[in-house]
Amino acid sequence: MGDSAEMIFSGDELLRGDTTNTNQLYLGERLLDLGIFTTRALSVTDDLETMVAVVRDSLARRPVVLVLSGGLGPTEDDLTREAVAEALGRPLEHHDELLEQIRARFASRGFVMGDSNRKQALIPRGSSAIPPTGTAPGFYVQHDRTLLVALPGVAWELRQMWEETVEPLLKVRRARQAIESVSNAQVVRRIRTFGIGESALAEILADLDWHDPEATIGTRAHLDGVTVILRGPASTEAKRKLDSVQQQVLAALGDRVYGDNGEELPEIAGRLLRAAGLTVAVAESCTGGLLGKKFTDVAGSSDYFLGGVTAYDDRVKTQVLDVPADVLAEKGAVSEEVAAAMAEGVTRLLGTDCALSTTGVAGPAGGTEAKPVGLVYIGSVVKGVTLVEQIRLPGQRDQVRERAAYAALDLLRRRLRREVPAG
Amino acid sequence: MGDSAEMIFSGDELLRGDTTNTNQLYLGERLLDLGIFTTRALSVTDDLETMVAVVRDSLARRPVVLVLSGGLGPTEDDLTREAVAEALGRPLEHHDELLEQIRARFASRGFVMGDSNRKQALIPRGSSAIPPTGTAPGFYVQHDRTLLVALPGVAWELRQMWEETVEPLLKVRRARQAIESVSNAQVVRRIRTFGIGESALAEILADLDWHDPEATIGTRAHLDGVTVILRGPASTEAKRKLDSVQQQVLAALGDRVYGDNGEELPEIAGRLLRAAGLTVAVAESCTGGLLGKKFTDVAGSSDYFLGGVTAYDDRVKTQVLDVPADVLAEKGAVSEEVAAAMAEGVTRLLGTDCALSTTGVAGPAGGTEAKPVGLVYIGSVVKGVTLVEQIRLPGQRDQVRERAAYAALDLLRRRLRREVPAG
Repeated sequence: MGDSAEMIFSGDELLRGDTTNTNQLYLGERLLDLGIFTTRALSVTDDLETMVAVVRDSLARRPVVLVLSGGLGPTEDDLTREAVAEALGRPLEHHDELLEQIRARFASRGFVMGDSNRKQALIPRGSSAIPPTGTAPGFYVQHDRTLLVALPGVAWELRQMWEETVEPLLKVRRARQAIESVSNAQVVRRIRTFGIGESALAEILADLDWHDPEATIGTRAHLDGVTVILRGPASTEAKRKLDSVQQQVLAALGDRVYGDNGEELPEIAGRLLRAAGLTVAVAESCTGGLLGKKFTDVAGSSDYFLGGVTAYDDRVKTQVLDVPADVLAEKGAVSEEVAAAMAEGVTRLLGTDCALSTTGVAGPAGGTEAKPVGLVYIGSVVKGVTLVEQIRLPGQRDQVRERAAYAALDLLRRRLRREVPAG
Repeated sequence: MGDSAEMIFSGDELLRGDTTNTNQLYLGERLLDLGIFTTRALSVTDDLETMVAVVRDSLARRPVVLVLSGGLGPTEDDLTREAVAEALGRPLEHHDELLEQIRARFASRGFVMGDSNRKQALIPRGSSAIPPTGTAPGFYVQHDRTLLVALPGVAWELRQMWEETVEPLLKVRRARQAIESVSNAQVVRRIRTFGIGESALAEILADLDWHDPEATIGTRAHLDGVTVILRGPASTEAKRKLDSVQQQVLAALGDRVYGDNGEELPEIAGRLLRAAGLTVAVAESCTGGLLGKKFTDVAGSSDYFLGGVTAYDDRVKTQVLDVPADVLAEKGAVSEEVAAAMAEGVTRLLGTDCALSTTGVAGPAGGTEAKPVGLVYIGSVVKGVTLVEQIRLPGQRDQVRERAAYAALDLLRRRLRREVPAG
C-alpha cells in the first residue's frame, strides 16, 4: 500500500439522514487519481472535544493527507478552526486580508458582512488560507508528514478549492517526493462503454490478465453504462504496459466505447451534433421528458437541441406526432413501428435534421408476457434515415427510464460517428 | 442528549469514490425516528487488525447501538465475522440451520451453493443469526450496554433486515427500558413547505420558542422546499405540546405547506388532478423536459398527464405552441406574456383541462441585468383561467431547473386546492 489519506466530516446532517455524503465520494475518487488511497472516512457530531480527539487520532496514524470538511461557517457550531488549532497546539491568528476577501464576497452579492463572520478570518498559526469560493475560507497546514486541509462542507465550494488549490499542492509534493524516493503514484484510465453488461464485458476481455500488477482491470456499472478501469504504477515502463492493455480493451469493445476523458453521453452527442451542424428533437413516451432534460443539462445545448414532444397519451402520438392510428392500434404503442413514426413525426413537426424517440414499458405495472417491463424501443432519424433499436432494460421504473434515455443518446452517438463525416 | 448510535462501514468502494454511502443516510434517519442520535459513522478499509481496533474503540464509548455494514460475504476480504469475534473475545461457531438457509437461498434461484459460502454460517458465540435476505446472513449480539448488529453492505438486504429484525428488537428494548427509566424516545414531525426561504420562514415563526425541549423547531432546505422539523419526547403530555406547536406552524405558514406525510409534490399534484378528474399538459422551455419527467416519475401518472411540448428553440414556441411572434419579439422569451401563451398553447394542442409552462434563464450564460440568471416565469392554466408567477431562483443551472420544475408543480397544487372543489 502506498500513501494513504483520511477524511473527517463534521456536521449532524450527515448522521441524521438529512444529506448523503457526496464529498466523500468526490474526494475518494480525486485522491485515488493521485495514487492516494483513503483508509478512513469519519462523520462525526459537531463537538469541540470530539473533534480535537479525532483530529489528533488521525494525525497519529500519519496519513499524507487529512481532509476535514465542514465546520468553517460563522456560527457557534462551526468548530473546525478551534479544533485544529487545539489538536496542533497552535493559537488561532487573525488575518486581515482574509477578512477583506470575505467582506468582498458579501459585497459582490449586494450584502453587508455580519460581525459573526469575523471569526472566519481566524486560522491556526503557520497555516495558509484558501480564499473563499462561497463565503467560507478554507486553510491548510503541514504537520509532520501530514498535509491537513480544512474545506467547507458545501459541495461546490469544496470542489472548487480542491481543484484550484489542494490538488496542485499535492501534485507539487508528489513531484518532489518522486525524486527522493520510489513513487507510489498510480495511473488510472477509465474507459466508458454503453450497451453491454458487466458479465458480457468480462467474457469479451477474458483473454486479458485482470490481475497484472502493472495493469489491473476492473469494472463498475452505472446507469449510463459499464466503466472499465485500468490501474497501474505511474512509472514509464508500467505506463507502456497500461497503454498496450488500453489498446487491447478498445479494440475488443469497438463502438461500445463512448469515451475515456470523463465526457458524459449528453455532452458527446451534443458535441457531435454541433460539429456536424445538425439539429435534433425528441419524441418521448416512457421517458416522459427525461431525454430532453438530459440534452438540456448541457449549457449551450440550444445550439442544436430545438425541443420535443412528450406523447405520454396515445392521442398525442396520433394528433401531434401523426403516428398512424391503425399502426398504433395494430402494433401497440410499444412497438418498432410506433417508435419510428414518433421520431419521423417530431422531425417533421420541428424541422430538425435528427430525432430520437422512446416508447416502452417502464413499470411497475403495464407489463405483459409479450411486452414485459423493461422492453423499450428507441427510434432515431439521422438526415432522413430511420433506425429503431429494441432493448431489454433491467431495474425498476426509475432505472428503466434513466437507462432508456441513455440508450437513446448512445444510439444517436453511434449513428453520428458512423454516418456523418466529421465536421 | 439521549441514546447514541455508531456505525462502521467496511469496504474500499466507499473510500475510492465508487459508491455513495446511502446506508449511512438510511440508518441515520431510521435511528433518529427511534430517538437515537448517531454520533459517529466511520468508513474503513477491509483489514482485520483495523476492524478489530475500530470495533473495540466504538464499544468503549458504550453506544446503545453499533451497526456494522459490509464484510459478510464469502470471500477472503469479508472480515466482519472474524473482527467482531476477536473484538468481543468470543470464538466463531458454526450454525447448521444457517448453512441450510443459505443453501436454500441459492437453490431458490437455481444455483448450487459453493464451498466458500460455508464460512457465512459462522457467527460469534452468543450472537443470534439474522437469516439472509439476499445470500449473506447478518447477526446481532448484546455486549454490555451495546447492541452490536452486523448487516450486509447491499442496500436492499440491509434495509430488509433492519426493518424486519433490528427495528422491532430496538422497539422492544425501548419499551422495556421505558418501564425501568424515563424514556428517551422522540417523536418527529416533518412539515413540508415550498416557496419560502429558511430565513423568511424563521421570521414568520419568530414568536415560537425554537428551543423548547418538549418541541424543538428546526428547518432543512431542499430543492423541493424547506422542511420544518418538530421534535419532542414521546410522552403523552409532550405530544400534546407538539400537536399545539404543529397547529401554530401550520396556521402561520398557510398554503405554503404542501404536506406532512412524506408525499412528494409530483404525487400531490397527481392526486389532486385525479380526484378532480382533470388532465394536464406541460410546455417547457428552461426545464427542457424535467417537469414532464417529474409528473411521470409517479407510476400511474398516465391517468392525468397526457404529455407536453418542450419548446427550447423560439421557433417551436411560435410554430407548435402558437405563441404570437410579435409578443415573443417584443417581450422576449423569458416573460410573463410568453409563459401565459405557452401554457394556453399546449392546453389547446393537447386538449387538456390544465397546463403548466416554464420559461427562464437557467444559466450559466444568457443572463442580463433586466433578466438575470435564476429569473423564471411559471405559467398555468386551470379550467380556462391563466395565471403566471414570476420567481427568482438561487443556485446553479441544475438547481435553477430543479427548483423551477418544483415551483410549477407547487403552483398547480395551490390552484387546484383553491379553485377546484375537492373531488
